[in-house]
Formats: sequence, structure tokens, C-alpha cells
Amino acid sequence: VTLPPEFALIARHWRPLAGEGALDLADDAALLTPPAGCQLVLAADAMVAGVHFLPDDPPETLGRKLLRVNLSDLAAMGADPLGYLMTIALPQATTEAWLGGFAQGLAEDQRGFGLHALGGDTVSTPGPLTLSLTILGTVPTGQALRRAGARPGDDIWVSGAIGGGWLGLRAARGEIADPEGRSLARYRTPEPRLALGRALRGVARAAMDVSDGLLQDLGHLCRAGGCAAEVELPLVPLFDAAQDPLAQVTGGDDYELLFAALPDAADRVAAAGRASGTQVTRIGRFIAGPARVALRDATGQDITPQRLGWSHRA
Amino acid sequence: VTLPPEFALIARHWRPLAGEGALDLADDAALLTPPAGCQLVLAADAMVAGVHFLPDDPPETLGRKLLRVNLSDLAAMGADPLGYLMTIALPQATTEAWLGGFAQGLAEDQRGFGLHALGGDTVSTPGPLTLSLTILGTVPTGQALRRAGARPGDDIWVSGAIGGGWLGLRAARGEIADPEGRSLARYRTPEPRLALGRALRGVARAAMDVSDGLLQDLGHLCRAGGCAAEVELPLVPLFDAAQDPLAQVTGGDDYELLFAALPDAADRVAAAGRASGTQVTRIGRFIAGPARVALRDATGQDITPQRLGWSHRA
Repeated sequence: VTLPPEFALIARHWRPLAGEGALDLADDAALLTPPAGCQLVLAADAMVAGVHFLPDDPPETLGRKLLRVNLSDLAAMGADPLGYLMTIALPQATTEAWLGGFAQGLAEDQRGFGLHALGGDTVSTPGPLTLSLTILGTVPTGQALRRAGARPGDDIWVSGAIGGGWLGLRAARGEIADPEGRSLARYRTPEPRLALGRALRGVARAAMDVSDGLLQDLGHLCRAGGCAAEVELPLVPLFDAAQDPLAQVTGGDDYELLFAALPDAADRVAAAGRASGTQVTRIGRFIAGPARVALRDATGQDITPQRLGWSHRA
Repeated sequence: VTLPPEFALIARHWRPLAGEGALDLADDAALLTPPAGCQLVLAADAMVAGVHFLPDDPPETLGRKLLRVNLSDLAAMGADPLGYLMTIALPQATTEAWLGGFAQGLAEDQRGFGLHALGGDTVSTPGPLTLSLTILGTVPTGQALRRAGARPGDDIWVSGAIGGGWLGLRAARGEIADPEGRSLARYRTPEPRLALGRALRGVARAAMDVSDGLLQDLGHLCRAGGCAAEVELPLVPLFDAAQDPLAQVTGGDDYELLFAALPDAADRVAAAGRASGTQVTRIGRFIAGPARVALRDATGQDITPQRLGWSHRA
């Protein structure tokens, strides 16, 4: 029996990415026994060439970025990665070399983050390359971090540094210099804070990941918690202190964790940061009042920009 | 805090589709407690306008078709539906009315099939409408139907009728008459055989769903089982006896179940058909030999076509 080219494609590039439960990508579906005592955590994200990434971004990092963006959602829930399913709509002109690089990048990250492919679908498109990924994780029952839970008086914390994704996009576009490629690496391969998320179970009162701009995403924690937030700009760990701070706190693609904790849990937050090898910084406080985010400068003046974030979406 | 338009879109159209575990689509991920004693069954499929459906297909059936194609994968594993995540890349010109119709069709099928949305992502694209869906189901541990398992001497069975998807595509293109819209309905809203799949647990020795043409998909069962297959064309339940039989047994989009059973399990297969209200028909037999599919006419002559099926894919 001669098979159409899609099957050769699956065998060559995707099958090596499949792991336990994927049934070698040869069945109609994957079959997985969920670990006992756990809840499942599920998220999906899509990326379109020319919208979410540059058409000439290297194939090696594209799949990794989508995987990491989804892993960041797991981190925000305090979950451990289990597996993923990816669908890919490929332009006709896609080369074998491109596919090889794409799969190789994914393989590398799978090893690094300890998960594997469970299934997916490869189709052709007359339009731009379009990737969609569903991630599956687990969290001990009842211990997931949630967005709702911040209360007036809670500290606002953030992991890592803010603004690197935005600077990296500008570097990729050739708009700013990035001699060491530090911000470009940040944009193309963000660092999902899985170990920190895990360490924050039972410590953070609310959490999410920063994808659409620090201030805008903080607004989500405010709405979910029914409170307002004040951020002190001098406290925010900017990715590059020499660059526009307002652009960095409203730029997207950070994939850092943003979370709330009781003031007297500050030591436990610091310990979670140390245990996970992740910098954690207190950047402000939740206060009583209707959902609103205020940014203050060193003198306490309100310098909140009109636009708190951005959005790639429809 | 003013939100970008994507959030209004999510609230208006997708939130009503969300159910238990989706956390109102307001968290970073869904959170789900898997039922005890079950394995998870996971599959993903993508569809691109102009490739997998016609750009002017009604929005009410598009989401339903993708959902049903995925439900058919669950049926092929003998699984029960649990939930799904969908990502949608929308062209800029998409109207609210289109989105409303799309979501309404999905809502209807969710009710009918007893599952709900767990999450997803909506992005914009400069290209064609692109949909991706990951489905999640459950099956009692160890009872999933699998592709491998057919052995020489086993009967080949198929559910429902074969060829309706292909005829419906031709009708949608205006190439053939379809006065009652029967084949068009079949093409746009295939019938996932969930009840039959469930009833075949412990009865079928191997199973899959027919998506790329009966003969081509039968080749997969042959390869997985290490045997050959002979189909008697006069036995095949064609969707329309007045239309080209070879085109119908090699056309795609049937979403019927194709399965193997021991000859002395024929009564149990028939009982599974009755219990699920689904027609089941024996169409041939697996035989010893290297993986190969042969089609025979009423005189026993080999009339196997060169091309056994088709493929939308890359």
C-alpha cells in the first residue's frame, strides 16, 4: 500500500517527538493514564507567521516558543508538564530542511522540560504558517494557583525581568542594537517559570503569567480579586535599565509570573525564588477599590500610561 | 481598566461554550479532575478554509464539523467525550454575525454530544480562516479500541454508509444534484459513531474511523495488524447506489467506524449495532499476507483501484 506524503512526513519528523501514550502517532488518538491524586491542567495557544512571529524567524525556535508560551500557562497554575498536541498548517513552499529544524528545536525543548508530543495534525495552507498547541499538565488536587485571590494589602511580585520580550521583538526588527543577542533570545525562547510556579503552591494567593504587558495583565489579577493595584516603577526589575521603562512595563511576551502574596509571606516567597533559582521582586501592593492599575514614579506621582498593554489577537 | 477587543470577543461568543473545569475561560488554563478508573483519550485536528472546507460554507456547521471529526476519533477508540480546546485564526474581515453563527452551531453540538469547551485561543490572521481543535475523552482503563489487532480470518465491518462525504463535497461544489441535501448534510455534519464505539469495547479486535477513504484507511488496519484485507464491493453499504462505487470507497470524509471482529463474534457485533442504533455491515475479511487491500467485484475479480484514498494534508 502506497501512502500519501503526509504519512512520510509524520514518520520522519513527528514520530521521534512522540512519547508514552502517543501510541507512536499511529492510532486515532493518544491514550494516557493520568497520575493519581492530580488534576489536569489544559491550555491552548496559536501563533501565525507575520502576526505572532516574523516570517524569517529561524524554524529551530518557532516550535520552542509556542511550547514555552504554553508551558508558561502551566507555570502560572503551578502545574507540571505532561504532554502536548500540536497542529501545523504548512505553506506549500515549506522545505524538508525547515521541518527538520523545527522538529529539532522542539525535541531539544521536550528533553529540557520533560514532556513529549501526544498527537497532532499536519495540514497544508495557502496562507501563512499557523501553529496551534494544546498543553497538558498536572497539579496535586486542590493546589493549583489561580488568578482570583489577590486582596487589598497583598504584595505584588514578579519573577525575572520585565521588558525583554518587547526589546527582543525590536531587535529582531532591527530597530535597536542587541550585540549579545540577549533580548532576541528572550523574545524567541522565553523562560517558562515552571520551578517557581511549583514552589509557589500554597504561597502565592493569586498568580498568572505576563504575556500582554505587565500593567495590563495586572489588571486581570485586580478584576479577578476585586481590588486595585499600585506598582512602583523604581521597584520593577526592568530587562534593560537603559531602555524606555514605560514601554517595558507595557510591552508583551515576557512570560514571567506575576503573583500576589500576603506581606508576612515575603520570606516564603523569597525562599521559593531561591529554591527554584528564579529572581523574585516585590513591585507594589494591591489596595482597596475598584479594579484599576496605577503606576507611580520615585516621587509617588501617578505616571500610569493610557495604554497598559498590547494584544496580537482578533 | 479598558480591555482590548479580544476580551469582549471571548466573553460574548466563547464563554457561553465553556463548562466545568474551564474556569470561565478567565484563568491561564483549565483545571479538570479526571474520572477515576479511566484513561484519557486525546486527539487534535486542524481545518483550513479553501483546503478542508469551502470558504462560503455556513459558519453554523464549520465548528460542528471540526468537533465531529474529533469526536469520530474518540468513537474509534471507544471513548466518551469530556471536553475540547479550540484555537481559531480569524481573517480581519470576519463579522460578528459570522462569529455568532459559528458559536451557535458549536453550542448545539456540545449539547447533543455532552461535552463543552475547556479553553482555546483566538488570533487574527492575514490568511484563510484556520481552526484547530484538541479533544479530550475518557475510556475505562484497558478497554480502548486500538488500530492494531486485526488477524487473518477476522471479519471486516463498517458502520453506516460509505461515500456520503465525497458526494456531499461534490454537491457543495455544484457538481452533482442533491435535491434533499442528504449528502451535503453528511459532508458538513458527519455523524461520529460514539455509541457504537462504546458498544464495541471488548467486541472489536481493532478499529479506526474512515476519514481518508475506506480502502486507504483499511490499509492502516492491515499494516497495524500485519495482514492483508479483501473487500467485496457488493457488500459495501454505499451512500448512493446510483453513484460511482469506486469513487465512494476511495472518497474521504465518511467518519464511519471500520473494525475487525472474530467471525464468531458476528452476533455480538450485530447486537452492538442494535444497541447503538447504528447500521453495521460485514464487507470482507482479513487474510494472511503482507499488508495489502484488495477490492473484488461480484464475480470475485480484483478491481482494486490504483489510488486507495485521498489526503488533504501536507
